[in-house]
Amino acid sequence: MVRIIMSGCNGHMGQVISGLVEKDADAEIVAGIDIVDNRDNGYPVFTDIDACDVEADAMIDFSSAKATDKVLEYCAKKKLPLVLCTTGLSEEQLAKTKETAKETAVLRSANMSLGINTLLKLLQDASKVLAAAGFDVEIVEKHHNQKLDAPSGTALALADSINEAMDNQYEYIYDRSQVRQKRDKKELGISAVRGGTIVGEHEVLFCGPDEVIEFKHTAYSKAVFGKGAVEAAKFLKGKGAGMYDMSDVIG
Amino acid sequence: MVRIIMSGCNGHMGQVISGLVEKDADAEIVAGIDIVDNRDNGYPVFTDIDACDVEADAMIDFSSAKATDKVLEYCAKKKLPLVLCTTGLSEEQLAKTKETAKETAVLRSANMSLGINTLLKLLQDASKVLAAAGFDVEIVEKHHNQKLDAPSGTALALADSINEAMDNQYEYIYDRSQVRQKRDKKELGISAVRGGTIVGEHEVLFCGPDEVIEFKHTAYSKAVFGKGAVEAAKFLKGKGAGMYDMSDVIG
Amino acid sequence: MVRIIMSGCNGHMGQVISGLVEKDADAEIVAGIDIVDNRDNGYPVFTDIDACDVEADAMIDFSSAKATDKVLEYCAKKKLPLVLCTTGLSEEQLAKTKETAKETAVLRSANMSLGINTLLKLLQDASKVLAAAGFDVEIVEKHHNQKLDAPSGTALALADSINEAMDNQYEYIYDRSQVRQKRDKKELGISAVRGGTIVGEHEVLFCGPDEVIEFKHTAYSKAVFGKGAVEAAKFLKGKGAGMYDMSDVIG
Amino acid sequence: MVRIIMSGCNGHMGQVISGLVEKDADAEIVAGIDIVDNRDNGYPVFTDIDACDVEADAMIDFSSAKATDKVLEYCAKKKLPLVLCTTGLSEEQLAKTKETAKETAVLRSANMSLGINTLLKLLQDASKVLAAAGFDVEIVEKHHNQKLDAPSGTALALADSINEAMDNQYEYIYDRSQVRQKRDKKELGISAVRGGTIVGEHEVLFCGPDEVIEFKHTAYSKAVFGKGAVEAAKFLKGKGAGMYDMSDVIG
Repeated sequence: MVRIIMSGCNGHMGQVISGLVEKDADAEIVAGIDIVDNRDNGYPVFTDIDACDVEADAMIDFSSAKATDKVLEYCAKKKLPLVLCTTGLSEEQLAKTKETAKETAVLRSANMSLGINTLLKLLQDASKVLAAAGFDVEIVEKHHNQKLDAPSGTALALADSINEAMDNQYEYIYDRSQVRQKRDKKELGISAVRGGTIVGEHEVLFCGPDEVIEFKHTAYSKAVFGKGAVEAAKFLKGKGAGMYDMSDVIG
Repeated sequence: MVRIIMSGCNGHMGQVISGLVEKDADAEIVAGIDIVDNRDNGYPVFTDIDACDVEADAMIDFSSAKATDKVLEYCAKKKLPLVLCTTGLSEEQLAKTKETAKETAVLRSANMSLGINTLLKLLQDASKVLAAAGFDVEIVEKHHNQKLDAPSGTALALADSINEAMDNQYEYIYDRSQVRQKRDKKELGISAVRGGTIVGEHEVLFCGPDEVIEFKHTAYSKAVFGKGAVEAAKFLKGKGAGMYDMSDVIG
Repeated sequence: MVRIIMSGCNGHMGQVISGLVEKDADAEIVAGIDIVDNRDNGYPVFTDIDACDVEADAMIDFSSAKATDKVLEYCAKKKLPLVLCTTGLSEEQLAKTKETAKETAVLRSANMSLGINTLLKLLQDASKVLAAAGFDVEIVEKHHNQKLDAPSGTALALADSINEAMDNQYEYIYDRSQVRQKRDKKELGISAVRGGTIVGEHEVLFCGPDEVIEFKHTAYSKAVFGKGAVEAAKFLKGKGAGMYDMSDVIG
Repeated sequence: MVRIIMSGCNGHMGQVISGLVEKDADAEIVAGIDIVDNRDNGYPVFTDIDACDVEADAMIDFSSAKATDKVLEYCAKKKLPLVLCTTGLSEEQLAKTKETAKETAVLRSANMSLGINTLLKLLQDASKVLAAAGFDVEIVEKHHNQKLDAPSGTALALADSINEAMDNQYEYIYDRSQVRQKRDKKELGISAVRGGTIVGEHEVLFCGPDEVIEFKHTAYSKAVFGKGAVEAAKFLKGKGAGMYDMSDVIG
């Protein structure tokens, strides 16, 4: 059982995590931190982090970059392991995060989804068998029509993970309509589909002689990051000082 | 019951069609034509088409462009409906095909697959509801690593079919990696995946608010063209002179 | 442009529809009805329906069965077309709905999703080509692990739609593990997958010789019912008295 | 470079493997064994195995059970590693296979596909993260309409692999239509779809809070077993006596 202090408990992700923990026999939120205290959460909420004296095994922070300095100081002082999910940190804050990690365990990851992080790891193992046996690797990602970048950062992370396992032999290809030629073995095609409100779908294909092996991740909402944060908190309980990321949780 | 003369009966597609018809209670091959007679087909095979005097309702031709002139002449003379599947015809042969269609029913289509032709039609109906309601349209096609062109001709035919139903409002987009911007309503993205020995997969997506409707066609071998040819023969039986295509068969 | 009165405007679906209409150039919410008025909606909200004297082209009702009687009376009196999405109506209320339809246009459907209703129609056309040509039909549906019934009502509706188009020739099969035998032509298999929080996925397969045609609907949230309601309101504008359903909207 | 003797070289799988090896820079067929010598293979073919005195690193056997005894004796005598793909062996032959493995390396597997064997291994790793975190596991398999058994042996092997990694906590569920209740955590649903000529598709789903991770294998023909056999031959080169299976090849 891990006892969690939820920083940013009344925000969207804080509420998502509160809901997830309620159904999780191995976790409990023992206190919340938020600048507003406008909900009935079933646990005490502190509007000032320094007022929080509840015993806990880890803190999950999904608040805002403005609050991060005090969160880091609190965890360093209390030696409280921290799952740091807040984005948009400044260079100073990133440096301070590293300092904090000298005092306690700090986990931070580009993508907190348990599924994506599992794939990042398994794809390396799959590549060493399938890509090594000459299977072609292709990635297709699908996102909503408001997304500015293509391909997605996660698609690139998946490609990089495969490429790393294969001695960086691949060249990423985003468009095949401009040339008339057979696919080269060194290509790794990445296609970006955009439409509607699709939250995020990533599909990695290993294509061999008369067989295709497909690894696919579908996100239905941003709640996927919440589930990863809870598993990260369970993992961090009792860990020593240092920087961790989701690949450590996957093990 | 349609009685078929199979032209090119001992070639790959001729044998595929022989196998399909054997299991089809509504069709029968009553004679074959081929320059070689090296198989036991269970029906008479003529190495000279003019020697074939078997009564039939339609001919399916899957031979070679070299044989097409005699096939056209035979069908014109006998007023025998013709499913013309041979590719690589010359301009003269295409003209002769039109002449033949003045004497008897002739069916010719870019893609003989029953599934693709059904989709070509249904996608127009789907577009008039879903695209008209603001759903984004995207196409993903997957083919083997030896294919020279991208996107596939069938993917473009599917896009054209949708575009025609929507007053040609769409611009086809093959690459989104070069710009950093939201998807425009007028875009119709077409992605081409290449790998292994994939025979052919086409997927058309209509993406709306929190729902996606997908139409997908998977071919496992070129036999899909044989099934379409048999259904075309059934359709042509008793039809008057004229040019037909698979959209007539779909009805 | 259709002017809509949104009944139940401050509930979950009322807010979803408010969001959809905001981005829709062809629709506008001109008034809301709700027992609570606790949000800033950008349109006037009436806690008493009879106090609402705003001119409109249609009402969408996503409130509760308790409010339905007054909604029906209001629409009958004002000759205001009604999209009735509230569920759990009593026999008396269903009878009253029919009475109301003598005075004004009333649309009610088991499933309001534009995508599902489009599929219900297209699957009949597809069946008349593909199932008639001997393709096997199978359905796979996926839902969250809290769902009590299997298969889903929507899966059965899709099967019924296909069966109706094929002279009710099919027997539905839910389990193949108990017998050791080949598939019979008259089978229509329906598989139910349950897991996680999957909102709803339905996939209909037509399987022929070496080709598969797949129709798939994925819902990401209940918002899909909102989009259908807005399209229904556009359709109802100016329509005469009578009962309608989503198949009329699909056209 | 592995030098292969292909036993059963003129059968269907022998020809498939000959084609694969031709395009593989790391393998070469140096001799073939077959009771008929009716093809131009580009390598010497022996109708009597004992007459074959060609130097090689491994033998692949895709002949028939009748030929197996002589194949085993030959490999034992020559200390030639053997990839034994022939099925339908008798109890006596299985015992003789074990005896042979005391003299040389022998590899035998229920399913020779590289893709399926990779999945069997990766699914155990995935389960230890995802199933352990409470994700529901479901399997859907699709095969042609002539298949007698359901679910497929491969689907059960995939389920067993997952179950083994999770301390055999799962109960396999094949039908959910007979009860009206929520999914239990201990269920592992296996659905069997049958239709057309589908060669074989297996999809394993891990369903968590708002995310689904899917592992899917699609076979387009029985050639997938050939690719696995070639990789197995490469692996066996230089290995000591003993029994091996495809999981050793995956590593």
